[in-house]
Formats: sequence, C-alpha cells, structure tokens
Amino acid sequence: METSRPRATSGRHYLQIPGPTNCPDEVLRAIAAPTIDHRGPDFQELGRHILSAIGPVFGTTQPVIIYPASGTGAWEAALVNTLSPGDRVLCFETGHFSALWKKMAEELGLVVELVPGDWRHGIDPAVVEERLSADREHEIQAVCCVHNETSTGVTSRIAEVRAAMDAASHPALLLVDTISSLGAIDYRHDEWGVDVTISGSQKGLMLPPGLSFNAVSAKALRARETAGLPKSFWDWLPILAANENGFWPYTPSTNLLYGLKVALRMLDDEGLENVFARHQRHARATRAAVEAWGLEVLCQDPREYSGSLTAVLVPDGFNADDLRATILDRFDMSLGAGLSKLSGKVFRIGHLGAFEDLTLIGTLGGVQMGLNLSGIPIKQDGLEAAMAVLEQG
Amino acid sequence: METSRPRATSGRHYLQIPGPTNCPDEVLRAIAAPTIDHRGPDFQELGRHILSAIGPVFGTTQPVIIYPASGTGAWEAALVNTLSPGDRVLCFETGHFSALWKKMAEELGLVVELVPGDWRHGIDPAVVEERLSADREHEIQAVCCVHNETSTGVTSRIAEVRAAMDAASHPALLLVDTISSLGAIDYRHDEWGVDVTISGSQKGLMLPPGLSFNAVSAKALRARETAGLPKSFWDWLPILAANENGFWPYTPSTNLLYGLKVALRMLDDEGLENVFARHQRHARATRAAVEAWGLEVLCQDPREYSGSLTAVLVPDGFNADDLRATILDRFDMSLGAGLSKLSGKVFRIGHLGAFEDLTLIGTLGGVQMGLNLSGIPIKQDGLEAAMAVLEQG
Amino acid sequence: METSRPRATSGRHYLQIPGPTNCPDEVLRAIAAPTIDHRGPDFQELGRHILSAIGPVFGTTQPVIIYPASGTGAWEAALVNTLSPGDRVLCFETGHFSALWKKMAEELGLVVELVPGDWRHGIDPAVVEERLSADREHEIQAVCCVHNETSTGVTSRIAEVRAAMDAASHPALLLVDTISSLGAIDYRHDEWGVDVTISGSQKGLMLPPGLSFNAVSAKALRARETAGLPKSFWDWLPILAANENGFWPYTPSTNLLYGLKVALRMLDDEGLENVFARHQRHARATRAAVEAWGLEVLCQDPREYSGSLTAVLVPDGFNADDLRATILDRFDMSLGAGLSKLSGKVFRIGHLGAFEDLTLIGTLGGVQMGLNLSGIPIKQDGLEAAMAVLEQG
Amino acid sequence: METSRPRATSGRHYLQIPGPTNCPDEVLRAIAAPTIDHRGPDFQELGRHILSAIGPVFGTTQPVIIYPASGTGAWEAALVNTLSPGDRVLCFETGHFSALWKKMAEELGLVVELVPGDWRHGIDPAVVEERLSADREHEIQAVCCVHNETSTGVTSRIAEVRAAMDAASHPALLLVDTISSLGAIDYRHDEWGVDVTISGSQKGLMLPPGLSFNAVSAKALRARETAGLPKSFWDWLPILAANENGFWPYTPSTNLLYGLKVALRMLDDEGLENVFARHQRHARATRAAVEAWGLEVLCQDPREYSGSLTAVLVPDGFNADDLRATILDRFDMSLGAGLSKLSGKVFRIGHLGAFEDLTLIGTLGGVQMGLNLSGIPIKQDGLEAAMAVLEQG
Repeated sequence: METSRPRATSGRHYLQIPGPTNCPDEVLRAIAAPTIDHRGPDFQELGRHILSAIGPVFGTTQPVIIYPASGTGAWEAALVNTLSPGDRVLCFETGHFSALWKKMAEELGLVVELVPGDWRHGIDPAVVEERLSADREHEIQAVCCVHNETSTGVTSRIAEVRAAMDAASHPALLLVDTISSLGAIDYRHDEWGVDVTISGSQKGLMLPPGLSFNAVSAKALRARETAGLPKSFWDWLPILAANENGFWPYTPSTNLLYGLKVALRMLDDEGLENVFARHQRHARATRAAVEAWGLEVLCQDPREYSGSLTAVLVPDGFNADDLRATILDRFDMSLGAGLSKLSGKVFRIGHLGAFEDLTLIGTLGGVQMGLNLSGIPIKQDGLEAAMAVLEQG
Repeated sequence: METSRPRATSGRHYLQIPGPTNCPDEVLRAIAAPTIDHRGPDFQELGRHILSAIGPVFGTTQPVIIYPASGTGAWEAALVNTLSPGDRVLCFETGHFSALWKKMAEELGLVVELVPGDWRHGIDPAVVEERLSADREHEIQAVCCVHNETSTGVTSRIAEVRAAMDAASHPALLLVDTISSLGAIDYRHDEWGVDVTISGSQKGLMLPPGLSFNAVSAKALRARETAGLPKSFWDWLPILAANENGFWPYTPSTNLLYGLKVALRMLDDEGLENVFARHQRHARATRAAVEAWGLEVLCQDPREYSGSLTAVLVPDGFNADDLRATILDRFDMSLGAGLSKLSGKVFRIGHLGAFEDLTLIGTLGGVQMGLNLSGIPIKQDGLEAAMAVLEQG
Repeated sequence: METSRPRATSGRHYLQIPGPTNCPDEVLRAIAAPTIDHRGPDFQELGRHILSAIGPVFGTTQPVIIYPASGTGAWEAALVNTLSPGDRVLCFETGHFSALWKKMAEELGLVVELVPGDWRHGIDPAVVEERLSADREHEIQAVCCVHNETSTGVTSRIAEVRAAMDAASHPALLLVDTISSLGAIDYRHDEWGVDVTISGSQKGLMLPPGLSFNAVSAKALRARETAGLPKSFWDWLPILAANENGFWPYTPSTNLLYGLKVALRMLDDEGLENVFARHQRHARATRAAVEAWGLEVLCQDPREYSGSLTAVLVPDGFNADDLRATILDRFDMSLGAGLSKLSGKVFRIGHLGAFEDLTLIGTLGGVQMGLNLSGIPIKQDGLEAAMAVLEQG
Repeated sequence: METSRPRATSGRHYLQIPGPTNCPDEVLRAIAAPTIDHRGPDFQELGRHILSAIGPVFGTTQPVIIYPASGTGAWEAALVNTLSPGDRVLCFETGHFSALWKKMAEELGLVVELVPGDWRHGIDPAVVEERLSADREHEIQAVCCVHNETSTGVTSRIAEVRAAMDAASHPALLLVDTISSLGAIDYRHDEWGVDVTISGSQKGLMLPPGLSFNAVSAKALRARETAGLPKSFWDWLPILAANENGFWPYTPSTNLLYGLKVALRMLDDEGLENVFARHQRHARATRAAVEAWGLEVLCQDPREYSGSLTAVLVPDGFNADDLRATILDRFDMSLGAGLSKLSGKVFRIGHLGAFEDLTLIGTLGGVQMGLNLSGIPIKQDGLEAAMAVLEQG
C-alpha cells in the first residue's frame, strides 16, 4: 500500500535526470573544505593546476575561461565576447535548449536565422553548408550549435558541421554548447575548429552546478577585439590576464574549484576514452531496454544517439509526467521531463556523470516498474536486454 | 574487454555485504562534525538525548549500555557482566557467528554446552525446552542465542525460545545477539524477556562500525552483582552511573554518537514498523529472484528467513568466491563470502540498513550478470520476479 | 628558525581577509549534501524556504533575486536591469571597489559622474544633495553607493544618502553594494528606500563564494520595464516568475543554497541585532588594539568605522605587503592587502562572518607579532587594549 | 551584559581540554567517506598501509595492535595479554589517570604495589630502582607508568625509568600509557625498551576518540604465552594473525582508520621532530603566560613539564570550575577540569594535537579575560610573555 511507504523515507535518491548528475562522494567532500584566500599562494597553486588540467577535457590546448556562474551564463559570455548588436547568427531548432539559446541571442540584440527542426534529429551538416554557401556576403557571424540536446537526447555531429563550414568557405565563428556532453561524449575543440565551446560543471564533470566554461580559439579572441556587445562580468580579457598568475579578476567559486580539481583527476584516472566508452555502453544498454519494452527512443538517427541521456516516447493516451510522478513517489527516482513541445510526451533517462552498471540497472528497473504501475503496456524484457549489453563488458 | 574497464573507476561502490551497510549521507556528514568536550554541557545534552532515544529500537524501556567499541566487544561485555568462571552456558550451532561466540565463552573460562546444528536452521525452541528441562540442577546460567545469523541468513525465533525457557521453568539468563537484526528485523527486548541484548552500530543502525550495545534487564543487573568474571572496561555499573547525567566514565566515541543521533531520528521518521516491513519486502524480492534463477536459498525454514540478508547456495562444481570476485571486478559490488564450513559454497546478499528498491534491483542485476559471466547455469527471470514483488508496494 | 617551521604544517589557517570569510563547519557540511533535481518537489521546498527567509537579512519584504554567480555579477545585474545605454549615473570614489563599479558602468555603456574622494571617508550626503539638486533635468538615473568599502574599511551612511536624495527631490534610483556589509552591519533596504541592494554570499552570510543577490524595490521593477541595456542571464523577470513556485529559470547553485539555508538559520538563531552588535564590538576591540600599538586606522570619521574590517596604515618606510607575507609565512594567517593606490600602505583585518572573541585575539596577536618581526615600531599594548573591550561583553 | 551574548551563538568552539583535541578538517572529511567491505581488497590496502605507517609514531619497528575501542580499553588489553590473576604490578600515584589504571588492575585481579606521589611530580626513577632492587624474588611482573599525566601536566622520564629497571636487573615488563603524549611528546618504544605502549586516537593523533593501541615488544609477546587473565576481544594473537594480511579478526572501525591514514600522513609531512618541537614551544609560551600572570604551574620539576597540556593552580579562595564555567559561557572555550583531589584547584589548558600559534594566543587570551572576569587577581602581562616566546620561532 503506497501510503505506508512515504516517498524517500529510506535510502538514497536516484538522480537520473540528465543533469545535475550524481556527484562522487569524494567531490562532495572536497567542496566542503574551508574556503581560502583567493589572492594567496595556496589558491594560486590551485588555480594554476586547474587551468592546466582542464584543457584535455575540452580537447584543447587553447585557453579555457572558468566562470563562477552556471551554464546559461557561459552562453551569454560566448555571445557578448564575439558579437555586436545586430549581428546575424545561424541557429538550429534541435530542441528546447537550442530554442533557449536563440531566445537569449535575440534578447541580447542579435538577429537569429533559424533552421527549423523536428526535435528528433540533430543539425544537418548539408543544411549548414547550404545556408552558409547562400550567405555570399558573409553576414552570418556565428553558427550556434548544441552538441548534445539535453531535451531530446540527440547529439549533433560537430565534426561534420565544421566540414560543412569549411566546404562553404565561410568565415563564421563556430560556437558549440557542450553542457550535457563535456566529459561524457567525445568532443574535440581544437581538432574540430570550434571557436567557443560552452559548458557547465553539473553534468559530465560530476560537480554541483555553479561553474561554467568558455574554451576559446585564437579566432574567437580576435573577434573579441571588435565585438560590440557590452560586457564586463563576462569579459574574457581580464580573466585571461589574471589567469596568467593562477588568479581571477573577481572572487572565484573557490569551493567548487576544489571539487573540479578532484573531478578532473578522476576523469584522468579513468581515462577520457574509457569515460566516453562507458557512456556509450550505458546508452546502448538503455536503448536495448527501451526497444525490448516495445517503446520508442525519441532520437531517430542512430548516428545521433546520445551517450548522456535517452529520451523515450510514451504511447499515445499516456502522460509521461504522470509516469515520472509515480516513479518519484514509489521509487524515489527523478527522471527528466519532456520540455515545451515534448511536455508529457517523453521522459528522459540521464545516464551520465558518475555512474555505473548497477545503478543503470536499478534505474531501468525503476522505469520498468513505473511503466507497469502506470498501466503503460510493455513487454517485460527491458532489463534482460540491458543486462545482455552490460555483460559484454 | 575487462582490462579496459579497471575496477571501480567510475561511480559508487555497491556495499552489499550483510554489514557494514551503506551509511546515509546525512549520517556520514554528521560524524564529520568537530569533536566536543565529553564532559561539557553540549555533550551532556547529546548523551541524554541518545540514551532516551535508543530504547525503542531495542523494544525496551530498560537501560541500554553504549560502548565505544565494535560489536564483538559487546558479546564479551554480556558474558563478563553476568557470569563467573566455570559457569555453564547453552549455545547453538546455528552458524559461524554462534561458533565464534562459543569460542569467546570458552576463552573467558565458561563451559559451553553446544546444541549442534546444520547451519540451515535457527534455534529449535523444542530443543531449548528439552535441554533446560533436563538441567534439573539449573547449572546452565545462560542461554546464548544469535537472533539473526549473519553467516547463514537464518533468523531464530526468540519469542519461542523465551516461551520454551518459561515452559521449562528455568532461571537461566537469555542473552541475544542482534548485531545483524537490530533496526532491521522486529525485535522486542522487554516483551520477549531478554536479559542482555547485544548489538552493534554498523548494520541496521546505518552507522560505521565502532559502537556496540548491551540492553540489560533487571535480572541481568542482579546477575552482575555476583558475576565473578573479571571486568573493568566492560563493567556496566560505572557506565550506568555516569549515564545518569548523560556522560560516560571514559571517553566515548563522540563522533559516532553524532551519527547515532541522526540514525535514530531517521529510523523514527520512517517508523520502526515500516523499517521492518521494508526489510521483509526486500528479502521476499531477493528470494523471488533466487528461486527464479533456479538457485537455492540456504535457509530451509520459511519461518526463519532473514530480513537482513539472503545466503544463496551455488551449484556443485562452482566456487562462490570466484563468483564474488567476478562481481567485484566487473560490477564493483561487494557480496558476503561463505564463512568456515560454507566457504566457497554460498554467497550472501546484504539487503539491510539504508536501502531502497532500486539499489536492490541493481544488486540483483549484478548478481545475475555475475552468475552468467561465471558460467553458472541459471534462468534469466530473477529480476522480473523480484520486480513483481516490489511493484506490489 | 623559520626554515624549520614551514608554513601551514600544523593546525588551521586563519582567513582574516575581509571576505571570503570563515564558513561555519555546519555550512560546509551542508553544501556537501548530494545535489537534487532542481525541478523536483524537494528543491521546490528548499527554494520557497530560502526565498521567504532571505528578506530579513536585507531588511526587506520585497523580492530578493538570487544568482548562481559571484558578487561582481550582481553589480552587472543591477545596472542592466534598470538602465539604458548612455544613462548617467552618480558614483563616488570611496575606494577600490567603488572604482571597479564605475569601470563596469562605463564598460556597459553608461556615463559616470564621479564624486572624487580620498579613500578615507565615505560618501558625503551633503555632496549627494548638492549634485542631485544641481541636476535640474534629472539626467542622473541612478546613485551608485558602496555601503561598506572593503578596500578601506569605511561604511557610508546610506540612510543619510537617502535623506539627501529626498531633500533634493531627485527621482534617481538608489543602488547600494552591500557585499561586505550584509549580515554584518545594520542595513535596511526598505526603510532606507534602496532600489537595488547588491550582495554576495562569501562575507557576512558565511558561505563560500558563488551566490549573489539583488534585492529590488517596486520602483526598480518599474525601471526594468524600460531599461534598454541588453540582458538575458541577469534579467530579473524570468527569475521572479520562476521564484513564484520556488524554482529558477536555469540551473541554480543547489549546493550553495543548502548552505544558505543553514546560514540564514544561524543568523536568525543569533538574532540579527546581536549579529550586528557582535561585529561592532569586534571592530571596536580591533581599533583599540591599533590605537594602542600607536598605528593609524585608515578610516578617519568615527561615524564611518566599519564593523566588517579595519584597514590599518603602516608607517612610512615600511611595506604592508612585506608585513603580510611575514604573517602568512610565520603564523599562517591571511590578511587583506592594500588595493591599487593603497598598495603596500595598508593591511586589512577582516573581522566579519562566523567569528568569535578568541579568534579575534589570535588574529590581533598574529598582527602584533608580525609587526614586531617586521621591525615596525609599536607599543606592545594592543592585545591588552582589545581584551579590555572584549571583557566588557 | 552576558545575557545579550548567549554561549556559542557565533563562530567556532575552542576545544582546549587536553583531549579530545581539535581534529583537522581533512581528517574529519576523511572519516565521512563511505564505509567499505572490511574483508575486501580496498580495505586490505588501507590496513596494510596503516600498519606499516603507524610504527614511527611509537618509535617502533615492532607490531602495533589497533583496537576499535577507546583508550581505556587499551589499558585493559595491555594487562590481560601479559599478566595472570594475582600478579603483582608496580604503579605510581602520579595523578588521576594513574589512579584509574591502578583501579583497573585491581578490578582485573592483580595486586598493585603503589608508590605514593603528590600529583606534582612524575615517577622518580630512583624509587623505581629502589623498589625493584628490593624485590629479590622478582614478584613484580610489570611496571605500569603513565608517560604524560593528563590530569597534572607532568611527563615522567621513561628513559630514566628504563635505566632504573636495568640498574636493578629486574625482569618486570614495562607498560607505558602514552594516551596524551603520543604524537605530541618525544617517545621511543624500542629505544626505551618498553614492552607495551598504550595509546588512543583522540589526542596527539588528531582523531576523534574510538581507536586505541598497544605497541608490543617480543618480550611482551612471550609473556602473552603464559598470561592467565581471561581474554578474547583484547587478545593480541588473532589480531596479529589477521594483520598479516591487512585485516582484523572482527569488524574494525573503518571510518576512523580513514582518518588515521590522513593523520599519519600529516604528522609525517610536518616531521615528528618538528611536531614535538612545536608542542614544546607552545608549552613554553603557555608557562610564560602563567608566570607572567603571577599564577603557578602545577608541575614542579622543569624536567617534567608537559608538552601536551599545562595545569594551572588558582589562588586560594577561588574555584577553578567557576572560572572554567565563566570562560565557557563568555568565550565558548572548554578547558580541562581539576580531577579528583585537584577538583576546583586547577584548570588545564590543552595545547596538543592540530594546533597553531594564533589559536594558542586566542586560548591564552580567553584564559586571561576569564581570570579577570572571575576576579582572580593577576598581572595583565600573560599574552605579551607568550608572544615573546612565539616570536622567537
């Protein structure tokens, strides 16, 4: 009887939204260390260490700016440092977060050219080439991509977007949001010629929210010289200048930086390639379960399956939010909701960050039981299918 | 390929031995608070609070002694406070820990009368009555029971043991080890007329190891007056005297007491009846999985199934320790080993303490995959069977 | 011999800069709790609680916006939400941070009218009245004040600034930075008619850096309607809308909010009036020590002495940074440096946040020994003078 | 007015009793890590590491037994492992704890020969030689010493006790309690020919209470073979056997062992010689303050001044407990009480464990203010005198 088992009276909560993710205990203990003087030698050592250790996660040897702010701020930073009022940017309707980014660009006074989409596919590189080739006057100043759409579980192929831009010989900047892919899905800022990579702390980096990032190319720094949007807090230049000595121009989030140091060490210990392979493996196991249940993954192109999360369509006649409420109430697990036009139609399973096979099985078990309790007709083979993937190592 | 996934490189460890158990985050944070003066007013308030809150977990309104020592010490305390050299005690061969207790009694100079057993059953109340009835001279001074045998997953029926003692009109003391049952399986020190209940912090109480307990009856305290075994550290009397004011006669484990305060509040929030019901439900789900795999639970009497752990026999020709090693290596989960005569023959799944449905599913998933990887022939229906139990609420 | 005692080999660091301050252990443990779903019911309860409990610290019943960003961002937020490009604002050269704020205003496209100052006094209310009265056309849109100048230890009298604005019948907005005064020095957003109060988490609020605040008046919200500076991340409106339900429009700094909940409870437990009195008492004791050493406090007007920190001038011929280095090396204590034009001339003693009499004595002892070791001639009566103040209760 | 400043409303508590001591933040965070399987490979690595790293702190290359119990238990362990009922032991009335140890010995059935003392001096090596020389039949089986008497602040000269035993050519075992000296005052188990060194975790080792120790010589292990006192929990042999593989025979205090690992690393980082020198320096500074106040240190022989704590006599007509209550109430500092015959006559200042110059100054400042507030006539020169010592480095 449900009333005899109130929610969350025992054990740990399952945080299986696609971020914030489950932080490792060691990271959480690290952020509980006493705050130190952000102008002193101990901080300097911390700052220098982090600034030298953060690059590989982005696939870059170029500067990475760290903001004491959450991820949305890093979007704003990317725009105000590179663009001027009235500049034209090319955006893609790949989901909720790409739409939010478009909204932000417009709020900041940019003109957005939007490539429509069905929220089930990533950016089409052919369309990128087509649009840029058509832009003979090079009015488009930036191409704004979301690497992994957190609202849909679709990963756009940034390397192919880059190739398309090159094929069009177009000088636009390439700005890429990796908030839900960094540290989870293979990403290469330098190799792919990205100009600004935007990210946050609370997903693949296994930290609480509160830090965000801009990895910047030399071309982006040149764009900064003429970018006319007003900027102060987000301005890269004073940060880069202070970073030379391991410091920040204003008070950094010292305690989250403690955690970042630990998280970077953990990623390095596991090995980034192993980290990416682990996420892909968990994604495969999750899709195997979805298929075995007889349900449908939102993402339609296997090349674009996300390693971070899987969005699952519920059958017509059922509401995904009711399902999520049942699962939260009965099994103390949080899943991601369908956002805006997907509201009620999908639920999202986060399988990124600090994560392991057995918690994935527990997660999928909670989903399967929740589906049953919600009367959604499924085959009971989901866990067996997922385990068959996981057993392969 | 296993070598590409070194053990424990990501995510959390699954501690599914039958204790120490997974401590709630809140308990772990509590024990990290600064140590305080164990003679000061803040400690006094803590001590008084704990001493008044601990009784219900034992089902007692009588004193509960708290030792700054692990559970084995509480066994010794029970014996040295109530018995004299050469005293005869009745013990039962229900498993490894009952055997260790017998060994301790002998080391301390007691004479043990042992009722043999097959390690698959609990104490037979009929045998208790028979043995005590035969003891016309009342030479047996104490009956030493293990409530829940951690090595076998068999729970003896203490209420019936009490009834047998009463039926025999025998004055022996009743000493009961509840190390792996307290806070997990229904237990009633007062109602069952137990004289000394022995317990520890690291299982149902959801704490790290380091605290242990003696709940004592008035009869036990009377026995203390004439008990001839030498005692000092374990002596109840100075502790009871100091407890009057919320203190201890020597330095208590202050930081574990911080955790105990939180754990007692959590048990009270959930409600002890709900706590016991949760453990039984998880035990039922576990046995459903074992049965569906086609394996055998060690415990043979359904009245004695343990709510804390389930010991599972591996088929002839397989070694349970190899299975456990595979599971630890591949899925970063610790399971309990078979002890002494059960070595290699069983593995034990702990499902007690801070625990929840989804982690049980993850645990059983790890076992099922481990069985497959070890080549142990099973049916693949374990998780489905377990989930059928859990879906019922 | 100094080389035999390397810095910080034992014991705790003394963080006596004027912020970040020493966080209470309980706050640090709170931020180490697992991150939760920022869209779920548990977060909602947290959000609602904090939003209702934060007002009294600002002396307001009006909205308080909480940003997942450090304090400098809250300055930018105050400006972009209320002003338009080319707007004129009145600033005051009271020290380093007022100068930084002026710089930010200019970077964002505002026109700053600066009242010069000597860095040893606060804002002169008579000058405020004079300047505003002279502004017949009401071109000045905002008066930007720093309540407590962290670089100088001078507290401007905001109530009198308000009275001066009223006397001039000038409609400008009143924006006040309370980053180093909130939760330390008496402050009254509503009573003083402040339109935007800017603050941060890492000083009087006893948290690590990473949260910042805008308390906003109805007049400020009206100004928001026509404010032409581009804004997105800092925009008040979506935050206020989401706050209605206890949420934020983008990912909040969940773990710092855990700490904020605890810190607000601690301030309430102590009582804000007691908190302010404690800070004044510690400031008095510090000044007594400075005077007894024969040194000079930077702040020249007793009405403007800061309760949060005390800046002390070193005699000519000595460098305050050498003194600070000696103190850090020998006594593992961080003090605040003299900033920009005060570089090398002053050191700053932070005595705010979670603080107590004995640590103040230890702090002053470290300063006295450091002065001696640096060869700065002082009388040795500083601690005795400070203790005479503290003994009075 | 005291009522306006309730105790402990702000800031940190000063725990200046002579143990438990202030634990380093890093140690406290370490013990909050999740408990692991005490039979698994990760624990084995931990156990082996600690067992190899613990020796130097005792000055030994021989075995060190670690008990999951507080220090009093380690006394009992030393006795039951080496002695038989009726054995004669030589004890010394150096203070409260030596008296407690005598009491324990008697409770366990030993015969105590007590050398009386005045609680202001340590063990007189000449008396040791005299007593042992007089014991022609070698009836005395053990000499029981307290290295540093926590109740008096007097450190006995164990090297000279050893020399006295050798001069008497007496075969008695030498048992030494180092509970308040280990990790604080120079100690050499091997060099001084100690047979059993008893210690605990909560003082110089900078841990919470809950672990205790027996360092044992080959001679002690031989004594174990014939020692007739009953033993089980405290028995060295099964522990030594299990330690061979990094394990313990029963559940160890895993989380405190996490902290021990960190504490041993910190002591090693600082260097044991530096640790001892630091304690002596703080003790000198404390005595300088006491003398400058015009008060008297309890310890009368400068060769026996304790590096861990200083006991101070209050003048006739004043009660030290009233003074301590005032200091606790007004300055939130705990000092040690006078015990048994010293009750009300002395207070004890702990200056051991994780400690630093500035906290010593704060501590002495609290004492000086408390003395003033209690109306105890003193000169106000204490802090200046202490700082003169500390300035010397």
